[in-house]
Amino acid sequence: MNQYIADNKDRFINELLDMLRIPSVSADPKFKQDVIRTAEFVAEKLRQAGADNVALCETAGYPIVYGDKIIDPSLPTVLVYGHYDVQPADPYELWHSPPFEPVIKDGKIYARGACDDKGQMYMHVKAFEVMMENNILPCNVKFMIEGEEEVGSENLATFVKGNKEKLSADVILISDTGMLGNDTPSITTGLRGMSYLEVEVTGPNRDLHSGLYGGAVANPINILCQMIASLHDEHNHITIPGFYDNVQELSQEERAEMARAPFDLEKYKKALDLSDVHGEEGYSTMERNSIRPTLDVNGIWGGYTGEGAKTVIPSKAFAKISMRLVPNQTSAEITEKFQKHFVSIAPKSVKVVVKPHHGGEPVVTPTDSIAYQAASRAYEETFGVKPVPVRSGGSIPIVAMFKSELGLDSVLMGFGLDSDAIHSPNENFGVFNFMKGIETIPLFYRYYAEMNK
Amino acid sequence: MNQYIADNKDRFINELLDMLRIPSVSADPKFKQDVIRTAEFVAEKLRQAGADNVALCETAGYPIVYGDKIIDPSLPTVLVYGHYDVQPADPYELWHSPPFEPVIKDGKIYARGACDDKGQMYMHVKAFEVMMENNILPCNVKFMIEGEEEVGSENLATFVKGNKEKLSADVILISDTGMLGNDTPSITTGLRGMSYLEVEVTGPNRDLHSGLYGGAVANPINILCQMIASLHDEHNHITIPGFYDNVQELSQEERAEMARAPFDLEKYKKALDLSDVHGEEGYSTMERNSIRPTLDVNGIWGGYTGEGAKTVIPSKAFAKISMRLVPNQTSAEITEKFQKHFVSIAPKSVKVVVKPHHGGEPVVTPTDSIAYQAASRAYEETFGVKPVPVRSGGSIPIVAMFKSELGLDSVLMGFGLDSDAIHSPNENFGVFNFMKGIETIPLFYRYYAEMNK
Repeated sequence: MNQYIADNKDRFINELLDMLRIPSVSADPKFKQDVIRTAEFVAEKLRQAGADNVALCETAGYPIVYGDKIIDPSLPTVLVYGHYDVQPADPYELWHSPPFEPVIKDGKIYARGACDDKGQMYMHVKAFEVMMENNILPCNVKFMIEGEEEVGSENLATFVKGNKEKLSADVILISDTGMLGNDTPSITTGLRGMSYLEVEVTGPNRDLHSGLYGGAVANPINILCQMIASLHDEHNHITIPGFYDNVQELSQEERAEMARAPFDLEKYKKALDLSDVHGEEGYSTMERNSIRPTLDVNGIWGGYTGEGAKTVIPSKAFAKISMRLVPNQTSAEITEKFQKHFVSIAPKSVKVVVKPHHGGEPVVTPTDSIAYQAASRAYEETFGVKPVPVRSGGSIPIVAMFKSELGLDSVLMGFGLDSDAIHSPNENFGVFNFMKGIETIPLFYRYYAEMNK
Repeated sequence: MNQYIADNKDRFINELLDMLRIPSVSADPKFKQDVIRTAEFVAEKLRQAGADNVALCETAGYPIVYGDKIIDPSLPTVLVYGHYDVQPADPYELWHSPPFEPVIKDGKIYARGACDDKGQMYMHVKAFEVMMENNILPCNVKFMIEGEEEVGSENLATFVKGNKEKLSADVILISDTGMLGNDTPSITTGLRGMSYLEVEVTGPNRDLHSGLYGGAVANPINILCQMIASLHDEHNHITIPGFYDNVQELSQEERAEMARAPFDLEKYKKALDLSDVHGEEGYSTMERNSIRPTLDVNGIWGGYTGEGAKTVIPSKAFAKISMRLVPNQTSAEITEKFQKHFVSIAPKSVKVVVKPHHGGEPVVTPTDSIAYQAASRAYEETFGVKPVPVRSGGSIPIVAMFKSELGLDSVLMGFGLDSDAIHSPNENFGVFNFMKGIETIPLFYRYYAEMNK
């Protein structure tokens, strides 16, 4: 098997580069054709690798690529999930090379989606090819690759609800997370949920001259800033009433266990060019971005933002705000609490509209399952060291949805690194990591099938 | 004289429309050629009206149009100031007709610059023509029309300092303000000054994934909002240390006098579609936008502002902030106090840069001067009612500069209305007001010359 992987390494990489050249930005309608072309690309590669029943399953949004290989209905079935859409690439000017013209530099593939999730998703397509070509596929496999993960997987749940039979499996396998390091592999055992909203504050019914009206009418930007500022107190706790009601507090033991994961605060600050970190009082950096909920403004705009100076009081100001959730908060609960609170703190001098965008539920995956153990053994064999279980701050809302709709746990075999800059300019993915994934995944299938015997 | 004005009314208006078609936006470099074309247009019209020594005087920025008519060195000289540049027209989509394709509707000329200041400046060019054609110019006149008023008149002071002889005069005449109403003419006797700055807050050195980093690093948008919010206290007083130190408090008598000016708060709120006004505790709306200093965010931007949702913690967030000043604050003093304070309130987790844009000094003009009395008589004759002296919230920084550099007071004969929506979409100027200006200005010259005898 490893010989076959070595012999085909260059082709595997080139195929990934071809897919990375297609700008499949699901958030921006102007890339619609490219997103669909990417779905067709994935489907074609699954067919070539030997998958049956390959199809682009229509949804209200972008299609879901399905394919399977049922070698024996009596054997366990692995359902592979991934996504072929990517985050917007702006700000373009901060990329050292164009986001959709992949280049390999210092052993890293630079392109939007290189890691999240085209690179990691494609490891599974190639691992499947490896098992097929070497006749070592030990169980059944189904692929479900969607194109709307970066915009909230809005149509996936409908698809899953409507295709429970087609998607029946024993475990879900996902590579859309990271590891602590190439010398410290880790497996993600927890994910944060999310509530994402957009707010609009309206002051006067038209833009006004800041001299003639300044001081006498509500400036929607000033007001929006005050409202946003009030959402955190001086200890950086979130002030939305009831926000923490359902937050699962970890025991001192659990926190001590977490604290054992290697982490160097000075390195962390240096890598981000920060003089200091910033977060909720009473929690470590690792805790703040994994077991604690957050509230971040992801975008804000209003008034004159062009060159030079314009003395205007704008009519409207806007912000995109997202909250990361932890067990046992729910997206619906937090979205409602935010809406209610945000409207309630608006002064009479402005009008406020709060539009929910999308949400997802937090999850914690079991470490005592056969699937987790199989994954752990696979990593240990290819990396030479036992992987550490870690809770990630990211969100893969569909993991909770799979549990509720299909009753299946997911095992999160991520091969990315913090330094991959996903969602940022100069996103990249190590060739080492890409190839390690292709080596490790077939071992997961082997051990998972064995342990199920 | 009035016969001549009536006979030429249509031509006067069409000439103004021609000038309004040239998009002379000084804030945006892409309109550079149009700004210069507008200067040439004004120069040509001054020549045609009979001015001597007409020239485009070069500056480090846009040229200043000069022209004069010296009929007798022993007679007093009026120096007319105005500006041919306009504010940016965005947001374009809110205009009912394109900002640079003027239309006349319900007796109003709709276009960017219709009132501020092309329309009001051109009244003086035509009033000059009227006096020349009817041989009734009673004193000397000089014109100084600049093209950088909307970006802070950055090069005017240098020009004035370098041409004190050329600009020697007895009074400065400006129409760049408004009246209370067509049935309540008023003359502006006070103007607010301004400090305009741009701030940049930097958190991490690159955009980050809000899941992996959310809660652990400073989000520059959240921080910028907190910093901006902290600039006002719960009484809407500005919190910058020493901000009010030099503010001239009006006596109860002066405030009572001001309160006599006709003002209908319900009408005011209705016109702006506001449920409530908003401003500094302890002051009326009229006081808040005239005798009190302000701090307004004129623009804010950062993070993802496109379609859909992006879960990012941006590296940077920005805001344009301006403060309106009253006697005896100075722009230099307030700009320095803002810079010092804003940097001081930044948490260690971010970097802050504060860039001063431009400023101007507040002024109060005397009402007991010959010039004011002459203007008052002129209005009374054309409007049939004595004009009210009012202090405006706007800024014409150069009025203070003229006083300090040339030792001259200005008389502010404004003919605009609040409803003209200057600096807003659908800026307009009444044909009635444009023509009233052309009738009233020659009367000012007449009385000013008489009273100087």
